[in-house]
Amino acid sequence: MKLLYPTSLRLDPSKLEGFGVNLQSYDVKTPIPEDHTDAEVLITWCNSPDNLKDASKRLTKIRWIQSLAAGPNDVLNAGFDPRKITITTGSGLHDKTVAEHALGLLLVSARKFHLMRDYQNDGKWPGPLGGPQPDKEPGTFNTLEGANIVIWGFGNIAKMLAPYLTAIGANVTGVATKAGIRNGYEVCAEDKLPELLPKTDALVMILPGSDSTKDALNAERLKLLPKHAWVVNVGRGTAIDEKALDDALASNEIGGAALDVFATEPLPESSPLYKRKNCVVSPHAAGGRPRGAEALIVENLRLFLAKQQLKNVL
Amino acid sequence: MKLLYPTSLRLDPSKLEGFGVNLQSYDVKTPIPEDHTDAEVLITWCNSPDNLKDASKRLTKIRWIQSLAAGPNDVLNAGFDPRKITITTGSGLHDKTVAEHALGLLLVSARKFHLMRDYQNDGKWPGPLGGPQPDKEPGTFNTLEGANIVIWGFGNIAKMLAPYLTAIGANVTGVATKAGIRNGYEVCAEDKLPELLPKTDALVMILPGSDSTKDALNAERLKLLPKHAWVVNVGRGTAIDEKALDDALASNEIGGAALDVFATEPLPESSPLYKRKNCVVSPHAAGGRPRGAEALIVENLRLFLAKQQLKNVL
Repeated sequence: MKLLYPTSLRLDPSKLEGFGVNLQSYDVKTPIPEDHTDAEVLITWCNSPDNLKDASKRLTKIRWIQSLAAGPNDVLNAGFDPRKITITTGSGLHDKTVAEHALGLLLVSARKFHLMRDYQNDGKWPGPLGGPQPDKEPGTFNTLEGANIVIWGFGNIAKMLAPYLTAIGANVTGVATKAGIRNGYEVCAEDKLPELLPKTDALVMILPGSDSTKDALNAERLKLLPKHAWVVNVGRGTAIDEKALDDALASNEIGGAALDVFATEPLPESSPLYKRKNCVVSPHAAGGRPRGAEALIVENLRLFLAKQQLKNVL
Repeated sequence: MKLLYPTSLRLDPSKLEGFGVNLQSYDVKTPIPEDHTDAEVLITWCNSPDNLKDASKRLTKIRWIQSLAAGPNDVLNAGFDPRKITITTGSGLHDKTVAEHALGLLLVSARKFHLMRDYQNDGKWPGPLGGPQPDKEPGTFNTLEGANIVIWGFGNIAKMLAPYLTAIGANVTGVATKAGIRNGYEVCAEDKLPELLPKTDALVMILPGSDSTKDALNAERLKLLPKHAWVVNVGRGTAIDEKALDDALASNEIGGAALDVFATEPLPESSPLYKRKNCVVSPHAAGGRPRGAEALIVENLRLFLAKQQLKNVL
């Protein structure tokens, strides 16, 4: 059996050996060579749309595609049929880097590094942001210690991020479709949002992009947040009503927003969000660095050869 | 006995009760009223120089001064004599907020939030900083996971910060005047710097400002750092030779510097550091928020009344 692995990231093929499978590298930006159309397994990462569309027509022996992306819309859009081919995702490979980025965005929001940069770029000492200052005044979000942080979307990334926040002293509560206790954290269902949001200092959104999550954070729910609260989004941009968010930022109805994802990316230059001082624009930089890909591929390769259920099936 | 506590921060006097001591508040910016010149204990925080100088002359009954600052140079400069009066510092009260700020500066440095803000202020999508990217390429500092982080100055703030970094996946080593194991971390003496620095991705400096630490990070030691390494300083600005640092930044001999402290504060507008893209200017914002002041005051009040050795004696 032949397995094709991409050269679009550093993968160590020796970590895939031991199964008697023929391992071949391939370029993700050009058509897959004719002598590889016998491949039964395809690993994908940042493949061009043309490469995938062409592969869906010519690689007729494919039985399993392992994408390294958390959401392999590109594979589906290319024409591969998940009813005929097993498609598995890279969910989990990006957790740590996304959690780290979310922590960074929270600290930028609280400690005001974005405003400091504005002063610096004007050649000025950011005096008002330094020196002795009131600590944990009601109506402020200047530190993670003692802050009430809600993480909406309590999957693997949240489970990675929450303990960092607890270590620094934050009070973390989750929100998800189903209530329960996950990894020791209280996770509420969405019907509790009217109760939770008024007491929230920072709302971290880690929702996937789907029809059911569209505009999850809408004007009504934005109004429930206190005026000092910050919104951080590292999930998908469609989960926030961007117009309502911009209105809230412009009128200081919330403290600010630090966003790594947007409804349209790149964020168009016409978007008013660029100009909001209390908005931090991050260019979908949280993930994009799958880690531990070989281990996931090996695990799924063993399951595939053993004819057992694979991990992360779409 | 009378104790004077400042109104320059939120202090709860009820948390100081139980010792039969007369607790009175006072304003730190104006001369202390005549009817309080019988005070034997003075708590200080952000007192004006005039207030302190005047107090040193008129409050002749003072036996103990508890500053809430980590380094009470202001009390000494006002004329109080540490040989005649017990002076205790607020060392420890700022650990958590300084550690949080240092973590924030490290994440700004690694995840490039400062550069993102520059793009945003130009109304542009920070495209090159986002999307799929190489992970942990040799010669880069883009994540704390797997990064070699050296903390120079391994006191209480370092002991608070190091576990946050370990949790995120960094490899932490300490440097101090004496080698040893502190809180489980390997702490090396300064003679090991030539060995450590070439393998360091981020150097966090938490040294006090004293004659012995002046220019601790000098041109010679800056040359030992790899070209991608970042320097973070939350200790005192005099510990870095700022001219040598600026040279290194200007010639890209190091990755960058995120500084909360400077030899002169405010940093003069003539300083070239403002213009360095790879320099992040933070205005001595890490501390300035003493936490747990009542508990320290109570502990020392009990020791004082018991005629035992106080904590944090200067």
